[in-house]
Amino acid sequence: MSALSFRTATKDDLPAIVALLADDEIAENREQATVSDEYVKAFAAMEGEHYNRMLLAESGAKIVGCLQLVFVPALSRKGTKRAIIESVRVAADLRGQNVGTALMKEAIRLAREGGCGLVQLTSDKRRARAHLFYRRLGFVQSHVGFKKDL
Amino acid sequence: MSALSFRTATKDDLPAIVALLADDEIAENREQATVSDEYVKAFAAMEGEHYNRMLLAESGAKIVGCLQLVFVPALSRKGTKRAIIESVRVAADLRGQNVGTALMKEAIRLAREGGCGLVQLTSDKRRARAHLFYRRLGFVQSHVGFKKDL
Repeated sequence: MSALSFRTATKDDLPAIVALLADDEIAENREQATVSDEYVKAFAAMEGEHYNRMLLAESGAKIVGCLQLVFVPALSRKGTKRAIIESVRVAADLRGQNVGTALMKEAIRLAREGGCGLVQLTSDKRRARAHLFYRRLGFVQSHVGFKKDL
Repeated sequence: MSALSFRTATKDDLPAIVALLADDEIAENREQATVSDEYVKAFAAMEGEHYNRMLLAESGAKIVGCLQLVFVPALSRKGTKRAIIESVRVAADLRGQNVGTALMKEAIRLAREGGCGLVQLTSDKRRARAHLFYRRLGFVQSHVGFKKDL
């Protein structure tokens, strides 16, 4: 694997991102592997918003990982700005090679640089390996995560 | 208790909001009961942002509950926009009177109206009563929540 680099996604990256999102045993039933209108519209709503981005890890010219990084000003904890991470994915053929660790560390660096005092995420209860991964990165499993479809 | 009404907070509501945030056995050590500069700056960063608001419940002229409601466009789940709820509080003397339920239902209504397909939140592991409250509102406890201080 070539050295990793990191950047914010543009519209041209959508096919690679959507393929990464779908290549997951838990998420595969709720994603499509091709770029449908829903993804295009959602990306247009994200793009250009200062608080919301898809962060990519690249090795050479190949996109090998992604995550969504959101900065949210908030009043709680004496006005602590939060970074929220969603949709962490690493290409199947590169898992176990620290791509995810490097990508998360870059997200944490950006969160600090952006003035965040807290970074948070939720992970499906079934993702035991992911939970270990986040604990190794210094995350504390202090909360339970609730979701409700609308 | 007078009938409840709901509205987005303005700067003038900060003293009431900050008092609500601090009146909580888990959060009291990380908040201040008075409006320090950190809260003022954080509120200024929230105010005017179309995606981020403090929603208030009022009874008569008294603020009796609050929560933060954030809308986040995202690619996952075929481009589903998410609503994220944080910092849910009800005035101590009015707990158990369905203020929280009404406030959450208003947040869910606003999330639907804003085009969100999912609403999510995390709750400290120790808040057993809150977990029951969220399940009664139709939330599924499907995730674990991780946080890391920066």
